[in-house]
Amino acid sequence: MSRELLETFPNPRPGREYTIEHVAPEFTSLCPKTGQPDFATITLTYAPAELCVELKSLKMYYHSFRNKGIFYEAVVNEMLDDFVAAFDPLWIEVRGEFHVRGGISSVVVAQSSRAEEPPNR
Amino acid sequence: MSRELLETFPNPRPGREYTIEHVAPEFTSLCPKTGQPDFATITLTYAPAELCVELKSLKMYYHSFRNKGIFYEAVVNEMLDDFVAAFDPLWIEVRGEFHVRGGISSVVVAQSSRAEEPPNR
Amino acid sequence: MSRELLETFPNPRPGREYTIEHVAPEFTSLCPKTGQPDFATITLTYAPAELCVELKSLKMYYHSFRNKGIFYEAVVNEMLDDFVAAFDPLWIEVRGEFHVRGGISSVVVAQSSRAEEPPNR
Amino acid sequence: MSRELLETFPNPRPGREYTIEHVAPEFTSLCPKTGQPDFATITLTYAPAELCVELKSLKMYYHSFRNKGIFYEAVVNEMLDDFVAAFDPLWIEVRGEFHVRGGISSVVVAQSSRAEEPPNR
Amino acid sequence: MSRELLETFPNPRPGREYTIEHVAPEFTSLCPKTGQPDFATITLTYAPAELCVELKSLKMYYHSFRNKGIFYEAVVNEMLDDFVAAFDPLWIEVRGEFHVRGGISSVVVAQSSRAEEPPNR
Amino acid sequence: MSRELLETFPNPRPGREYTIEHVAPEFTSLCPKTGQPDFATITLTYAPAELCVELKSLKMYYHSFRNKGIFYEAVVNEMLDDFVAAFDPLWIEVRGEFHVRGGISSVVVAQSSRAEEPPNR
Amino acid sequence: MSRELLETFPNPRPGREYTIEHVAPEFTSLCPKTGQPDFATITLTYAPAELCVELKSLKMYYHSFRNKGIFYEAVVNEMLDDFVAAFDPLWIEVRGEFHVRGGISSVVVAQSSRAEEPPNR
Amino acid sequence: MSRELLETFPNPRPGREYTIEHVAPEFTSLCPKTGQPDFATITLTYAPAELCVELKSLKMYYHSFRNKGIFYEAVVNEMLDDFVAAFDPLWIEVRGEFHVRGGISSVVVAQSSRAEEPPNR
Amino acid sequence: MSRELLETFPNPRPGREYTIEHVAPEFTSLCPKTGQPDFATITLTYAPAELCVELKSLKMYYHSFRNKGIFYEAVVNEMLDDFVAAFDPLWIEVRGEFHVRGGISSVVVAQSSRAEEPPNR
Amino acid sequence: MSRELLETFPNPRPGREYTIEHVAPEFTSLCPKTGQPDFATITLTYAPAELCVELKSLKMYYHSFRNKGIFYEAVVNEMLDDFVAAFDPLWIEVRGEFHVRGGISSVVVAQSSRAEEPPNR
Repeated sequence: MSRELLETFPNPRPGREYTIEHVAPEFTSLCPKTGQPDFATITLTYAPAELCVELKSLKMYYHSFRNKGIFYEAVVNEMLDDFVAAFDPLWIEVRGEFHVRGGISSVVVAQSSRAEEPPNR
Repeated sequence: MSRELLETFPNPRPGREYTIEHVAPEFTSLCPKTGQPDFATITLTYAPAELCVELKSLKMYYHSFRNKGIFYEAVVNEMLDDFVAAFDPLWIEVRGEFHVRGGISSVVVAQSSRAEEPPNR
Repeated sequence: MSRELLETFPNPRPGREYTIEHVAPEFTSLCPKTGQPDFATITLTYAPAELCVELKSLKMYYHSFRNKGIFYEAVVNEMLDDFVAAFDPLWIEVRGEFHVRGGISSVVVAQSSRAEEPPNR
Repeated sequence: MSRELLETFPNPRPGREYTIEHVAPEFTSLCPKTGQPDFATITLTYAPAELCVELKSLKMYYHSFRNKGIFYEAVVNEMLDDFVAAFDPLWIEVRGEFHVRGGISSVVVAQSSRAEEPPNR
Repeated sequence: MSRELLETFPNPRPGREYTIEHVAPEFTSLCPKTGQPDFATITLTYAPAELCVELKSLKMYYHSFRNKGIFYEAVVNEMLDDFVAAFDPLWIEVRGEFHVRGGISSVVVAQSSRAEEPPNR
Repeated sequence: MSRELLETFPNPRPGREYTIEHVAPEFTSLCPKTGQPDFATITLTYAPAELCVELKSLKMYYHSFRNKGIFYEAVVNEMLDDFVAAFDPLWIEVRGEFHVRGGISSVVVAQSSRAEEPPNR
Repeated sequence: MSRELLETFPNPRPGREYTIEHVAPEFTSLCPKTGQPDFATITLTYAPAELCVELKSLKMYYHSFRNKGIFYEAVVNEMLDDFVAAFDPLWIEVRGEFHVRGGISSVVVAQSSRAEEPPNR
Repeated sequence: MSRELLETFPNPRPGREYTIEHVAPEFTSLCPKTGQPDFATITLTYAPAELCVELKSLKMYYHSFRNKGIFYEAVVNEMLDDFVAAFDPLWIEVRGEFHVRGGISSVVVAQSSRAEEPPNR
Repeated sequence: MSRELLETFPNPRPGREYTIEHVAPEFTSLCPKTGQPDFATITLTYAPAELCVELKSLKMYYHSFRNKGIFYEAVVNEMLDDFVAAFDPLWIEVRGEFHVRGGISSVVVAQSSRAEEPPNR
Repeated sequence: MSRELLETFPNPRPGREYTIEHVAPEFTSLCPKTGQPDFATITLTYAPAELCVELKSLKMYYHSFRNKGIFYEAVVNEMLDDFVAAFDPLWIEVRGEFHVRGGISSVVVAQSSRAEEPPNR
């Protein structure tokens, strides 16, 4: 399972709230309907709590989507769930910027935080 | 009717408020006064509730304006009404950036949200 | 009088507060001191109430400054007054970005809104 | 027939070889296989002989492709033939830069000149 | 007559062939058909012989087109003739880059040199 | 004294709070330690009260630093004090963006407003 | 075999030498040493003889490298050989611009033409 | 110890809260795992209290990381601690933008202020 | 005299013809007519023969123009003469790109080479 | 010795003359006079003969300059000599673009080819 590829290390400065951003312009997966490749830049931004994500394992995690059929909205939400499960940050955002398909480019952005209210409104 | 071209699918992560943006730089319609083509980039941004808009049907919906005579302000407001009717999002914005005409470029932006107050002020 | 050049049409969606922006990079007037040409990009942004400004008449209005001697600050404030008089929007901003003169470029920005408090402070 | 839309006027400086370039980023036609719209920027560059092409008629000529099914390679070559027939320049180039389709953007460029050798090689 | 506005001064290094370029992005004239303003960037490049053009007089010369009705092709060719008459350079190019009109921007470029062959070909 | 170079004129629209920005990319002074030239872009932004600063006098004021030895922090704070003394605006910001020295570029920004609390905290 | 994915169609204007360029920024293959993904933009430029390459088959051909281990230099040279075998153009260039690896980005460019001399020098 | 390299001078305008930013695109350190060089742009922004950091000593401080093995997160947090210890500003932010490694670029940002609440939340 | 500020060192690879370019965006001098500052980027490009110009002395040489009244054309030609006198390169070009004055920016470029023919033509 | 770090592999397409370019923006060495770090982008372009340079060894070779005192002109010429000795290409260029020092940025470019004439002229 992809989530297990994510490795972590202890936050070197746990008492201070600060942010880490990793920008990965080489993400690729497959369209579940056509089987054709999709391409995106994935930007992960988070404020670490006890744990940070290890950079090389993050790269391997992204690569695990290479031959997987998955929709844009599912890519971003599944990653957010995996990241929260793996290193449970104070705050986190996942942003996927997908290349032009049919003359339209798309961006999907999801956030989560420890202080978050229940999602009903 | 154009609105019927819009197809939807169930939001894969309904409890989380997140955003989806589709940028379409290939929009074209006709000026209702001169019959000459107008060109625009249409940006749709929304937070899905129960439904998401299907990308290919969105493309077809935009193409349905190709030979239609319609003013800038009406393009954006009509789209906003159609989108709300089709997939009723938590929040939505439609932005039309129209090419230079007579040395002037124009941008029209309209928003709607479920929590919106009545529009009188 | 320049103000009379501005024509309007009824706002097609009067109950919704939305914004319209017209960017005109071809504005030119004359310096009242030297008689030399000044150049600017004029950006008009407003939320229409009952009326919208007609685009071609806006172009003619801007052209009426072509051989008029007027200072930067007066260009922007006079336009704002004329626009409020002509179509009385919910909210409006006029922004003039003037080309380099004596190694210095200048930007003048003025706003007005129906809800505005009296201007004394 | 589209070619007949092109109007000309006498070259105002016929003895001097100089160049004229018209860049049109609002070209659109239809894909002959799928019926879907294609979009391109068409750049016409030429050295006039006895005639110049009139700018407004050039715009109308481009608009005549709006609902026509035609391949990229044919767009550029057909235009080149039409332009040579209409104003027979000393030298001419037509360049079509087509938007991304299937993750690939395309450029087609063709030239012709009065001094050209027969096209066999 | 506009040409008489051009003032010159002796080339400070007459034996060396070198180049001078003046880029003027604030050129404006009138369309002879519609009376509407046209806007362009005029780039003059030349290798001086005995004379150089004085910069302030060049500005005044450009300003003399402000309320004159003239076509793109005539602007560039008339300037080239005026410059050759005024300071007779070793080599000269005039380039006019005109703003978008009807969705099309245009560039006209003409050159002249002392060594030029007669213009027939 | 430099401050005396600043000339003012009455604000043409005194009852309205609006903003004026002057961007001067040609500022130069001397390093007080090495005597070597420093270069910066100075951006003055303010909301005029009774007075506006005259543009040509502002240029002369900036030029008065040309052969003066002064640190970055002092440039910006001294200007702010001079501007407040000269035309006492409702609000003002001075921003100095200094060129690379020793591989490091620097930006100093200071603000003042009439409503400002005493500067102790 | 990948080469067999390439489909062709007859050049619609066989007597005229003109050029076609296809830019594909979504190319990905695997490093034969590490198994990690490589990413590149592949630009194919050619002058067609009797045949043109069909755009959708070109996309499929590029996708066939997705899970193939191959070095940069081999990607470009193998493509050039495949293209010459498939549609034998008058002239052809293949350009691969590979993303940063180890802080270094790389570009490999190869050309071939019918008129080419034997490659020994 | 690196921290001792930092020299300070008295804030020339201590009563006014203003900001100073130093952007250093030439930072380099070593990866503690591989020993390979890392590269980053370090941006220090602060509001001085009694002291400012001297620019040349800041450069020397950055250079002291040249042959030191240290992780991204530690670079930024250690610098923040050193700066607070050296010149104790009213407010401070350190931003490290690290070059691409494994196809991913990273940004780490940490802040501190005198008025800061205890970091627990 | 300014020329004496230029210091040289022996070309470390005298047998190979290669090029060195120094780009100095911080050049400033005075207008000989108005006394107002002029600003330019000076680009020196040359192929060294026996000598190279020392970088710090080049900076000092440029600074020597700071309070000197001199025309654009003279700046570039005087520098070219000084450089040839100081380090007599195989080939040299001096390019001065002067900031906007009166809405016009200017570029002056001069070259010299050992193989140059006498300048008459 | 640095040159020994360069590893090679056989050119996979030895009969075809094609080009390879490696762009390395992370080069750093030391100034031999001040001991301060210098930074540059090194671009190696070559047409391989029998051998290609291995990318990871090229990175290690560049890193070997990290703590070496060497002038700009020597960096480029020494690299060119090392590359020719290591893989003896048909043609090669080394380009070093050095960061701003004293307000001046510098570029040094050297080339070599097998067919080169003796360097005297």
